[in-house]
Amino acid sequence: MKSNISRSNLLKKFLNTRNLSVQITSNLSPEDNNLQVNSDVSPNKWHLGHTTWFFETFILEKYLDSYQYYNPKYLYYLNSYYQNKGNKVPKNIRHTISRPSYNEIINYRKIIDNRVLELLTKVDSEELNFMINLGLNHEQQHQELMIMDTKLNLFSGIEDSYFRKKDFDFLHKKSDAWIDFDEGVFNFGYDGDGFFYDNEKGFHKQFLHSYSISESLVTNGEYLEFINSEEYNNPNNWLNDGWNWKNQNNITKPLYWIYIDGEYFEYSINGIEILSLLKPVSHISYYEAWAYARSKSCRLPTEFELEHALNVPDTTFKNVFANVSNSFLDCIGFDKLNLFGNLWEWTNSAYLPYPFYKQDGGALGEYNGKFMNNLYVLKGGSSFTPSDHIRNTYRNFYSPEKRWVQSGFRLAKYN
Amino acid sequence: MKSNISRSNLLKKFLNTRNLSVQITSNLSPEDNNLQVNSDVSPNKWHLGHTTWFFETFILEKYLDSYQYYNPKYLYYLNSYYQNKGNKVPKNIRHTISRPSYNEIINYRKIIDNRVLELLTKVDSEELNFMINLGLNHEQQHQELMIMDTKLNLFSGIEDSYFRKKDFDFLHKKSDAWIDFDEGVFNFGYDGDGFFYDNEKGFHKQFLHSYSISESLVTNGEYLEFINSEEYNNPNNWLNDGWNWKNQNNITKPLYWIYIDGEYFEYSINGIEILSLLKPVSHISYYEAWAYARSKSCRLPTEFELEHALNVPDTTFKNVFANVSNSFLDCIGFDKLNLFGNLWEWTNSAYLPYPFYKQDGGALGEYNGKFMNNLYVLKGGSSFTPSDHIRNTYRNFYSPEKRWVQSGFRLAKYN
Amino acid sequence: MKSNISRSNLLKKFLNTRNLSVQITSNLSPEDNNLQVNSDVSPNKWHLGHTTWFFETFILEKYLDSYQYYNPKYLYYLNSYYQNKGNKVPKNIRHTISRPSYNEIINYRKIIDNRVLELLTKVDSEELNFMINLGLNHEQQHQELMIMDTKLNLFSGIEDSYFRKKDFDFLHKKSDAWIDFDEGVFNFGYDGDGFFYDNEKGFHKQFLHSYSISESLVTNGEYLEFINSEEYNNPNNWLNDGWNWKNQNNITKPLYWIYIDGEYFEYSINGIEILSLLKPVSHISYYEAWAYARSKSCRLPTEFELEHALNVPDTTFKNVFANVSNSFLDCIGFDKLNLFGNLWEWTNSAYLPYPFYKQDGGALGEYNGKFMNNLYVLKGGSSFTPSDHIRNTYRNFYSPEKRWVQSGFRLAKYN
Amino acid sequence: MKSNISRSNLLKKFLNTRNLSVQITSNLSPEDNNLQVNSDVSPNKWHLGHTTWFFETFILEKYLDSYQYYNPKYLYYLNSYYQNKGNKVPKNIRHTISRPSYNEIINYRKIIDNRVLELLTKVDSEELNFMINLGLNHEQQHQELMIMDTKLNLFSGIEDSYFRKKDFDFLHKKSDAWIDFDEGVFNFGYDGDGFFYDNEKGFHKQFLHSYSISESLVTNGEYLEFINSEEYNNPNNWLNDGWNWKNQNNITKPLYWIYIDGEYFEYSINGIEILSLLKPVSHISYYEAWAYARSKSCRLPTEFELEHALNVPDTTFKNVFANVSNSFLDCIGFDKLNLFGNLWEWTNSAYLPYPFYKQDGGALGEYNGKFMNNLYVLKGGSSFTPSDHIRNTYRNFYSPEKRWVQSGFRLAKYN
Repeated sequence: MKSNISRSNLLKKFLNTRNLSVQITSNLSPEDNNLQVNSDVSPNKWHLGHTTWFFETFILEKYLDSYQYYNPKYLYYLNSYYQNKGNKVPKNIRHTISRPSYNEIINYRKIIDNRVLELLTKVDSEELNFMINLGLNHEQQHQELMIMDTKLNLFSGIEDSYFRKKDFDFLHKKSDAWIDFDEGVFNFGYDGDGFFYDNEKGFHKQFLHSYSISESLVTNGEYLEFINSEEYNNPNNWLNDGWNWKNQNNITKPLYWIYIDGEYFEYSINGIEILSLLKPVSHISYYEAWAYARSKSCRLPTEFELEHALNVPDTTFKNVFANVSNSFLDCIGFDKLNLFGNLWEWTNSAYLPYPFYKQDGGALGEYNGKFMNNLYVLKGGSSFTPSDHIRNTYRNFYSPEKRWVQSGFRLAKYN
Repeated sequence: MKSNISRSNLLKKFLNTRNLSVQITSNLSPEDNNLQVNSDVSPNKWHLGHTTWFFETFILEKYLDSYQYYNPKYLYYLNSYYQNKGNKVPKNIRHTISRPSYNEIINYRKIIDNRVLELLTKVDSEELNFMINLGLNHEQQHQELMIMDTKLNLFSGIEDSYFRKKDFDFLHKKSDAWIDFDEGVFNFGYDGDGFFYDNEKGFHKQFLHSYSISESLVTNGEYLEFINSEEYNNPNNWLNDGWNWKNQNNITKPLYWIYIDGEYFEYSINGIEILSLLKPVSHISYYEAWAYARSKSCRLPTEFELEHALNVPDTTFKNVFANVSNSFLDCIGFDKLNLFGNLWEWTNSAYLPYPFYKQDGGALGEYNGKFMNNLYVLKGGSSFTPSDHIRNTYRNFYSPEKRWVQSGFRLAKYN
Repeated sequence: MKSNISRSNLLKKFLNTRNLSVQITSNLSPEDNNLQVNSDVSPNKWHLGHTTWFFETFILEKYLDSYQYYNPKYLYYLNSYYQNKGNKVPKNIRHTISRPSYNEIINYRKIIDNRVLELLTKVDSEELNFMINLGLNHEQQHQELMIMDTKLNLFSGIEDSYFRKKDFDFLHKKSDAWIDFDEGVFNFGYDGDGFFYDNEKGFHKQFLHSYSISESLVTNGEYLEFINSEEYNNPNNWLNDGWNWKNQNNITKPLYWIYIDGEYFEYSINGIEILSLLKPVSHISYYEAWAYARSKSCRLPTEFELEHALNVPDTTFKNVFANVSNSFLDCIGFDKLNLFGNLWEWTNSAYLPYPFYKQDGGALGEYNGKFMNNLYVLKGGSSFTPSDHIRNTYRNFYSPEKRWVQSGFRLAKYN
Repeated sequence: MKSNISRSNLLKKFLNTRNLSVQITSNLSPEDNNLQVNSDVSPNKWHLGHTTWFFETFILEKYLDSYQYYNPKYLYYLNSYYQNKGNKVPKNIRHTISRPSYNEIINYRKIIDNRVLELLTKVDSEELNFMINLGLNHEQQHQELMIMDTKLNLFSGIEDSYFRKKDFDFLHKKSDAWIDFDEGVFNFGYDGDGFFYDNEKGFHKQFLHSYSISESLVTNGEYLEFINSEEYNNPNNWLNDGWNWKNQNNITKPLYWIYIDGEYFEYSINGIEILSLLKPVSHISYYEAWAYARSKSCRLPTEFELEHALNVPDTTFKNVFANVSNSFLDCIGFDKLNLFGNLWEWTNSAYLPYPFYKQDGGALGEYNGKFMNNLYVLKGGSSFTPSDHIRNTYRNFYSPEKRWVQSGFRLAKYN
């Protein structure tokens, strides 16, 4: 358990990260910030509180003698899924908690920030540094969620939804090229000096048969052709669960596409735009990605194939994968950094433990391991992901029907 | 269709009523005013908007040439159940509409108020006066709902809920006395000069067998004895639907009673208080009232028996029924007026049309008639009811399992 | 509690009634007799057992010393809704009980029949006679249910459903005539010597305003015109609950109508037939009947109006109401008798207690009183009703959306 | 597509397999054979029909000119999940189809059997042989389902459930021994001459880190200790989905354990027996197996680890895995054969395609590939599995919460 980050850098990261979360919500009204349109998402107010609660319960309570909680009732409101941390408000009714208000949560953040900063100044401990770094990485995950959630929350409203009037460039490119990789036994997992989660820890080996991956993500234009073809409604192209999901939810297009008078539009972070055919198709489920791939007699890559591709130096692929846009979070005022990808990329790998994976006991052990069931791994990162929160070994994971994730996919095949 | 109200009185009533609705919400935060904990209740923000929409769609759109709606999108958000007024946001997701904000709705109210006042100054029409009066009576119904809804919304939160730190006196009284009434054919329904709803219109006759009604409402103390006795869990005392409702919802006490360490408390508009045994039991369902009455070998009175009791001059009963407290709405600063009752009183009468009832066509016809199914009539009025919104013939109605209504009951029997 | 039936007549009735129930099922397979397509209906096998259980638990267990139940496990399977009689298999999963088989239930019936007959021979008691008569009336209610349920059960199958190849004549008649009745205070309820249920007991008075009732039931042809008109899909014609029910269940026609290639057919007890336009429309809900009546600016009659019409001697109406067909049950081989009606007739009266109604304590008290909530009264009787199970005061009752009842309706209005 | 089975052997297999299915149902009543207590299971009558429909639609319809279906309505009833074969009765309401009866289905089987036998005599075709062999393997899967389903169907009834009064020996053994395996790249999948399914086709390579597997399956006694310890209710031992499943379904023990007056019993194919502590624990979910393993700081083996263990010659493990009991199906009168295991064994491998897996187009392509989502692989075979339906490469698969499968598990760990 080492953070491998200097105290001064940790301090800067703390200030920047904590500040960024508030900035994400700052142009929104109190009502906007308490929205929760379904049980996938949470109110921004809750995200702001929960990421603060994390510091309070995992750090302050541990390092400060006879620590007095800011407000013991918050523990019940702000816990997410930690069984070891007591009862909690059921996720789907977080919007029913009006008190504390947004302003009170902002105040709560300030007070906890000061306590953490004071602690950080006084105590020099490897473990403390790790825990603070973990809290900040945790908050970065919630930053992406806040943008995902706000996008969906406002989509359901009656007003033209918008977030910020500044676009960021997606890669507009389509290519038919394939990049080939040879078979072999390769190392996977994180074995470096920086921060990582337990689910990506340590080298282990996998045998890969030789394979090819498409250079580009599948585009809106290509997906539109799929929709307009007979293949889209052919059950032979779908997983059984996918076909049932499609019919029960009357799915006819990606989540944020809008069809008006014969034309397709796309709801974006900036409101409604004409559908750009060269942008990668986004906000689609694993089921839709799987069906598209099968309709092309291809398949989705595995998580190991994508990670291997990222590990191989000097491939065209690496270029494609990395040559990206400004992230949304950069637009708020932070340095431009390259992201790994435009979109999180679905893989055909179930989210299961790596060999030698060891789940911690206690509350921190609830971070990853207990979710390893009925989910799929996504690799890369999206323009909603903080750019210093990305690495080759990162394993994101979602349920196959989820679409509010900024997800896309590329094709794979065996040689 | 006559309003029988002078224009100057109508003007005063308009100003007072419109102002009162805003006052009810003024001590609450934007988050509070957008709460909706279940599909019975609505956000206060929506109530404020909907009661304004009523004036816009039923009056301004009709009386002003080529009327331009303030915002056509509001029609979709602010319609309640009027099929004749187009599509609408499903009731259970009104909380997902963050825009317009509370402040924008307040602004909307001001603008529509000015338009109505200008119209009222210019046009002197019996029909217009009636429609404005109808709109104000409609708003008074929503004022009661706003208080009921806020009480429930805050009850689910994590903070000590409170509304205003001013109590109003419930009648603290228990008596074993019965008041007797003779049989006969009597007139029912409204046949006077003031405002009334179509469901109470015009005289009709009913035969009543001689009966007795208890002088007092059943009290918390009496209901507590019921809970503590074997009778409470004896299925023979319950309607079949009531027994299933009780078991499926694990009902063990009235909605707002709280049981802590062997003692009962009651959540009130002012927060949590020790249960007062002499106050009438409130916020209970028809099922609970019915079961209590049967356990005492009595029954609930019919709507006609209660209305007849109100119509009979000089009875002790009339006294009891009328000798009441300050209403909650009075506490906000309006004149003290006598209410009819402390609580709406459940009757054993299904909400069905009076003889000769004629449902209007069009949107106004949707006001009452289409709801006459599987509901029960309540008579009287509560301390949440605006005091000038009460009369002998008023027919309130709710589904038998509803408990967020400020409801109570008294016993009846045949002689 | 008097049965007012001679022992010899009771004996004959016992033999006939018990025999008839078995006959109803005798042309059906074991699989047919264990069908249960939804939770409204029950398997015939269960009906045969439950009506026998009634004699065992309410009579044999009471009159015979140290009575040994035929099989104590049957008590759990064969209880319907009697809370006082212990736990029971939930209604919706009665079809999951394969053992006892149909043949075993037939054997159970024989054994219990013999025990009852022996008891009846030995004991001459007014109370015993009443209880046996009650058991037989109870069984007659289940005979109608068995035919209703079988009709629905087979409707869902893949084979041409049929029951018996013998038709019975519905009244084929349409008239525009109205029959008028004068206002007054009249007696209602049963005050005679024969058998009756507690819900119809004893005279009480009601005031009726003068009214008119249509001579004929609404026909298939008239209802078809309604469906084909704009009125059918006009929400203003429907109760709010009815409109929601119609939309949620995608209702476009009565339950048993079938629409193939532009033509309407009707599924009957004999299989699929061409829709007869002059037959009364049947198997429709209260909601549909209500909507039809409102679209004609009429209403449904109240239960008191229909009962009064039956009580008035020498009216044309009485003729119409009584001049009927063979009942289905007659077809099985019993004497022809006039029924009151072709179909049970929906009324606009909620099923509520009569004045002075006194619900018994104990299990028998569960027969009627505890269901008096959210149901509507039907009067008359249908061709599925045993003909000696019909009388002026009979109060049948169902939930407003139910359609597997053999129900129809006529129109009413005030003069 | 080769069957690699001689025509005479195929003929014998056809006669034996088709006969065995009927034998499984022959001691049960028509009502028993139409039971369906939930949507996991199907009526035996349906299984008998569906396995016959398979021969009719996939073979007879293809090989016989202008083939006339026995009864076209059966296509609608007897299709399971083949989208390419038209509409079908929804799975959960198969019990609502009383016609055809059991006897009619038996007759249907005889007629189709004769047609297939005649075809087999006349046509000598590699493809036909394969298809018939596929149909028989398909039927063997349903034979196991029939026993699983009957066990569950009768468990819900009120009678002591039983099937046949002949026991078969489970391995009664507990050991603490571990068997170790070295790391390496190994071949997986079926590459032989016999019958196989597409999901196990062809060699591919996987790298395995060195690991150990427990010699014995976890026993009832060991699992009982788990239940009685604090670990059972410690959320840290459970997958998140598993913990929610446990709480929502109030899981306190394996499916067929019964707790009476402080003692545990087990419902078996022969009725209720005292719980045998040395038998392997059975009928538990993946979630329960996973939790047990984690509570012991172990894990479940992967499908590759188990298959590799089976492939390694001369290991103690092979002995353990194979040295088994009579299968249930043997008890009916067929030759005794060794089974692979007592119980299907849960693995920690999601059911995903092997490298190079190619899903067929058309209806046969629906056999396996479309289900590869949110399921886990089970290896081995159970005493309900026909003994010639078992092989090293067999991949069985179920959803992680299913318990009516005859499933158990052993532990694994890395060295």
